[in-house]
Amino acid sequence: MLARRLAAALALLAGLLLSHAAAAADKNAPTPTTGQLLARSRAAEWRTPDPRNLLVMQLPTGRVLIELAADFTPLHAANIRTLARQHYFDGLAIVRVQDNFVTQWGDPASDDTGDKTKLRSLGKARGTLPPEYTRPIDPKREWTALPDGDVYAPEVGFSEGFPVARDPASGQEWPTHCYGMVGVGRGNDPQTGNGSELYAVIGQAPRRLDRNLAIAGRVLEGMPLLSGLPRGDGAMGFYGKPAQRTIIESVRLASDLPPAQRPAVEVLRTDSATFAALLDAKRHRHDAFYETSSGKVGLCDIDVPVRERTSTPASP
Amino acid sequence: MLARRLAAALALLAGLLLSHAAAAADKNAPTPTTGQLLARSRAAEWRTPDPRNLLVMQLPTGRVLIELAADFTPLHAANIRTLARQHYFDGLAIVRVQDNFVTQWGDPASDDTGDKTKLRSLGKARGTLPPEYTRPIDPKREWTALPDGDVYAPEVGFSEGFPVARDPASGQEWPTHCYGMVGVGRGNDPQTGNGSELYAVIGQAPRRLDRNLAIAGRVLEGMPLLSGLPRGDGAMGFYGKPAQRTIIESVRLASDLPPAQRPAVEVLRTDSATFAALLDAKRHRHDAFYETSSGKVGLCDIDVPVRERTSTPASP
Repeated sequence: MLARRLAAALALLAGLLLSHAAAAADKNAPTPTTGQLLARSRAAEWRTPDPRNLLVMQLPTGRVLIELAADFTPLHAANIRTLARQHYFDGLAIVRVQDNFVTQWGDPASDDTGDKTKLRSLGKARGTLPPEYTRPIDPKREWTALPDGDVYAPEVGFSEGFPVARDPASGQEWPTHCYGMVGVGRGNDPQTGNGSELYAVIGQAPRRLDRNLAIAGRVLEGMPLLSGLPRGDGAMGFYGKPAQRTIIESVRLASDLPPAQRPAVEVLRTDSATFAALLDAKRHRHDAFYETSSGKVGLCDIDVPVRERTSTPASP
Repeated sequence: MLARRLAAALALLAGLLLSHAAAAADKNAPTPTTGQLLARSRAAEWRTPDPRNLLVMQLPTGRVLIELAADFTPLHAANIRTLARQHYFDGLAIVRVQDNFVTQWGDPASDDTGDKTKLRSLGKARGTLPPEYTRPIDPKREWTALPDGDVYAPEVGFSEGFPVARDPASGQEWPTHCYGMVGVGRGNDPQTGNGSELYAVIGQAPRRLDRNLAIAGRVLEGMPLLSGLPRGDGAMGFYGKPAQRTIIESVRLASDLPPAQRPAVEVLRTDSATFAALLDAKRHRHDAFYETSSGKVGLCDIDVPVRERTSTPASP
């Protein structure tokens, strides 16, 4: 743990030195691209998601990978694992695509009003869960502050790969509804979410949902398979006809797959010097195309990079 | 002009009284929905877009309506009108759909590198234009300030139906790259944009583009036809195969259509009491579903409402 924190501190220091060096460099030098920055990154700046937190959703069009935010919403992660292990999602469908809002999947027999009587059996999973909208701020956890400001929260930043908002006054923090984040559908009662209906944000971050819905995780791969679907013609973007739905072939936990079939992906650590450099490149972009840099970067304006793993994963 | 400003002042006053009344009302009363607020709006709170600023793009899947931001980018609006009048866009295509970024259309023979040698003749239109990225702040123009803050600009608000950022220090203002805004593609040279390549924002607002690209207008209708397309598999989301492109059947100015064929749409005035009430409802949403209201609304978190016109338009 100490070694991890020391490594984080060194990474931060390296980031500060890097940005100082960048500031001192020729102002006319073009800002490095994301590809250039990632190519220069060190292996230790990448992490392999815990396979117990990695959902593999197979659609007819391809694979969607979702990393569960298990440290934020542990009861939801546990329930989703249970659902995946009993193959609950297999044969269910993408039932809703509301433009500039969300793509939602689950049981087409559910009606999204909190009435779960139509839901087929959840098996060993729980039907109701505590909301898990926020968690107490813990100074021992990784925290990469984003000093650029935010419309919705007093403080924002990244923790364990997720975009997070904080309110020091209440001592609480919560993952935010940025593009690609996966939330837990529910009815009006906050206890009615259980992870059997999930949605991914496919438009402008609907930050008004923060602290009103539990965040299950983040899409690491396959967003175009969710965002590029025809919008639903029914109320709230639900598909009016069954034929419009995309069928879910299967949802599995990576840890339940044979090792050779597990997705080999790595996520850039949000406390790494390279992530800090990416944020800085967004803020101060200046190249042959960009004349005016914004000087700022918003919490939802950067996707934490994901790559195919090329080497053996580091031991945990 | 005075009557218009008096009307705006009265509308603002009405909005203030409304929100005061709302604050004094039962705190448990649910926040009115957008539908409820629009149903209560007055006819004078809606405007009919100038048909010379209304582009009708016909796709095989339906109609896309774009209102030109002619007061912000008059030279671009004039060039786009010229292109539409000579049927320049007819038979061209949607050539690029980059996830969480833009859908772009124009001449498939163009290569988006600023090399216009491959472009078919622009006819009477100009091949290059001054950039028109910003304009001077003019206190005589409509301005509805959004006091909620912004990551990217010192001041933001709405003007003539468009989301706008301002920098009082430079005395400049500019339309912002919110969802559904339409920008002018160009090569590296800022002078290479001419309106023959346009893009619509289909993801998280890429505010870093502000002041680097000219804004041509805003999509009033048909966003799902642009946002719900398969993402391009080539670099920057360009389609690798011609068959993946969506063909543009035609682009016409509404003013060039016979009156009976002109789209009958109205846009809610952004200086109206109902628009102020919509913003307030977003900030303080509290109903059977939402437990925690954000207290804030971001510039790109509200779409200015558009409706089918049911009555005869008011004379200008």
